[in-house]
Amino acid sequence: MSDIVRIGMLGGGTVGQGVARIIRDTAHTIERATGHRIEMGPVLVRDASLGRPGIDPSSITTDPQAVLGNPDVDIIIEVMGGVDPTREWLVQALRSGTSVVTANKQLLARHAPELLAAAEEGGSELRFEASVCAAIPVIKVLRESLLAAEIESVMGIVNGTTNYILTEMRKSGMAYAEALTQAQDLGYAEADPTEDVGGGDAAAKMAILSSIAFHTRVSIDDVPHVGIDQLQGDDVDIAHELGFVTKLLGVARLVDGAVSVRVHPALVPGDHPLAAINGADNAVLLESSIVRQIMLVGPGAGGTETASAVVSDVLSILGSNPGSFLGGALVDAGRPMAQDGSLDSAFYLRIDVADKPGVLARVSSVLSDSGVSILTVLQRGEGEAARLVMILHRGPESRVTEAMAALRALPEVRDEPVLIHVVGDGQASA
Amino acid sequence: MSDIVRIGMLGGGTVGQGVARIIRDTAHTIERATGHRIEMGPVLVRDASLGRPGIDPSSITTDPQAVLGNPDVDIIIEVMGGVDPTREWLVQALRSGTSVVTANKQLLARHAPELLAAAEEGGSELRFEASVCAAIPVIKVLRESLLAAEIESVMGIVNGTTNYILTEMRKSGMAYAEALTQAQDLGYAEADPTEDVGGGDAAAKMAILSSIAFHTRVSIDDVPHVGIDQLQGDDVDIAHELGFVTKLLGVARLVDGAVSVRVHPALVPGDHPLAAINGADNAVLLESSIVRQIMLVGPGAGGTETASAVVSDVLSILGSNPGSFLGGALVDAGRPMAQDGSLDSAFYLRIDVADKPGVLARVSSVLSDSGVSILTVLQRGEGEAARLVMILHRGPESRVTEAMAALRALPEVRDEPVLIHVVGDGQASA
Repeated sequence: MSDIVRIGMLGGGTVGQGVARIIRDTAHTIERATGHRIEMGPVLVRDASLGRPGIDPSSITTDPQAVLGNPDVDIIIEVMGGVDPTREWLVQALRSGTSVVTANKQLLARHAPELLAAAEEGGSELRFEASVCAAIPVIKVLRESLLAAEIESVMGIVNGTTNYILTEMRKSGMAYAEALTQAQDLGYAEADPTEDVGGGDAAAKMAILSSIAFHTRVSIDDVPHVGIDQLQGDDVDIAHELGFVTKLLGVARLVDGAVSVRVHPALVPGDHPLAAINGADNAVLLESSIVRQIMLVGPGAGGTETASAVVSDVLSILGSNPGSFLGGALVDAGRPMAQDGSLDSAFYLRIDVADKPGVLARVSSVLSDSGVSILTVLQRGEGEAARLVMILHRGPESRVTEAMAALRALPEVRDEPVLIHVVGDGQASA
Repeated sequence: MSDIVRIGMLGGGTVGQGVARIIRDTAHTIERATGHRIEMGPVLVRDASLGRPGIDPSSITTDPQAVLGNPDVDIIIEVMGGVDPTREWLVQALRSGTSVVTANKQLLARHAPELLAAAEEGGSELRFEASVCAAIPVIKVLRESLLAAEIESVMGIVNGTTNYILTEMRKSGMAYAEALTQAQDLGYAEADPTEDVGGGDAAAKMAILSSIAFHTRVSIDDVPHVGIDQLQGDDVDIAHELGFVTKLLGVARLVDGAVSVRVHPALVPGDHPLAAINGADNAVLLESSIVRQIMLVGPGAGGTETASAVVSDVLSILGSNPGSFLGGALVDAGRPMAQDGSLDSAFYLRIDVADKPGVLARVSSVLSDSGVSILTVLQRGEGEAARLVMILHRGPESRVTEAMAALRALPEVRDEPVLIHVVGDGQASA
């Protein structure tokens, strides 16, 4: 790459403006460290009439070919979002030898293999740090620093909106709906929060992270996800009393060589590293026998944070040999996905029952019949009803599923029992 | 670099054996991701008669030139330690164009500029992730991911021995000496613990980190350090009551363009991210206006962890253009060091005084005369003595130094007053 590197950008919103500003303000540092001078070239926008602070007005264009078909553009930054036409455009660029930096989580979680194959074909590079957890450099760390560390599990709080809501529910005893409204008022949640609170956003990020961590191909369609929208404040409170903190977790692990990736609410022991991650922060905990636990923490969103990750990817391209890292990885399917029944977990179980003599004995024997063993029991009478809360020992999830079916059939059980994953062996101290 | 990359290694101890094992076990992953096959070549040891599991006995040599003067060696890994003759050997290798990976903290903290200049001259690369916090990839993150993030401060728990001791003192109320003995029994502290408990080890790491973070040249001689060996259990307990956790911190920051780097005990607010780092873990908190706070956490020592960092540096060399990143940085002095008096801090102050009427008033007025303002006071009578504990508002350290001289001169003050830095503005909640 020549000494002057020209950037073409698709999209000129908040992140794009941040990219232009960082490149302008740190040009000297970048040149001193890498030997390259980075210059902003054409920026594709939909509406050329809007003001775009930080971006040179003369570089703004509404013609995609001014970026995509421009021989003066060395690297394309994609911050426009969406899957179509972004996907075709980036495949075209990569195939023709232009390296691409993208912040597009949905695109990566669905089409990473196709994009990486196009990069291999064109001898170009694809980087996407900003697609997961903004400026927390988890992709670079997994892809480069821990490439040979044989990562066994990736566990993360990768959605800031839900972590903010859960933190507020625990700290001030708010109900879910109230905490969500507050998050919306403060700009932590969107007007339509489905993607965040339903777990879809976290699932996309976990698909990307697990692909890199395990050198395989995981699509968002491989990631079952349960959000926090069904979570009840009561359970958050009871969990807290028992010494647990409730989090929306992405959990990816290797189980006998197969890959399991899921997103669901989980109770985290109070002294677990992820329990201390509050507010809109994100954290990813990487485990392997070689490096034990490495955790990366930081803001998982934000305009300048995302822009910083984009710029760092540009610098990575400048500093690296084309085709280094990743190479064949991700393009091959690599590993099978694990079967659901093959997993072990501890659980929190809440059952609201009619307060009749012998009900605890009957519930216990249903569990025991399925081979599920109880670690902790908390029973509270409430008039004619009683609330049973149990922590179930770590064991095969298939047995718990079986027990749940039998519990639902008990005449004393009033509502659908509540079942929440517990991280670790069920103890409130890790 | 050719498809087969041959490693020469200086040193064949625990870390070297770990390196050989990781390279052997992950050869396939590495080749698939980078396109290079890594092979272990000659390994220099002092005593060829010792068993060295993981290392091929036929590769062992006691002749330095079998590694240094060997045209088949593409990359040299240095895990022998020491400053002489290591320094000359590595300078020679780098100058002649052989890239070097080293885990040698003391060498880097003293001679980084000379080594980097030799690398620039020879067109070779110098990498040293393993020299700070083992497998926590803080150097790669600072050097590459956050190169353009304009880091303003680096605050770290970078010594596991002292963090283990402080955690035990707080959790089980042990005195310093007792906790040290336990750490020695469990292998967390060396027989001669001076380097760790005196802060020298942390100072060397902070010199390296601050050099990279601020693109400048900081030697260990520029880093004043106070250890935990003078710390009293009483102060750890009182701080805990007040909502603080006591840590040995490395603190590096930019003050009006100048660099301040220090190591000293500090009280950290209970809800500060560094407060939750327990036992022998390390953590580094990076702050900038662009990315807010990024924290990296993990085991800061260990044979396989250090070996993993060494291997990741080898992979970084394979994947990068020679001379990319760093370049001129570190070789130039870059920025001046800040003057001590120019810094601000909040403080914990403990004074044991004779319990006479008016003593609190006299102490308060001495502080006020120097322009030091009090945030919190705790006074406890103990027979004829009284113990005054104060948290002093954040303000110029020079004023506190001045006030200390005046306090020592008060007839009621019995012992040397105890002064400990407090992170933040003095509040126990960040």
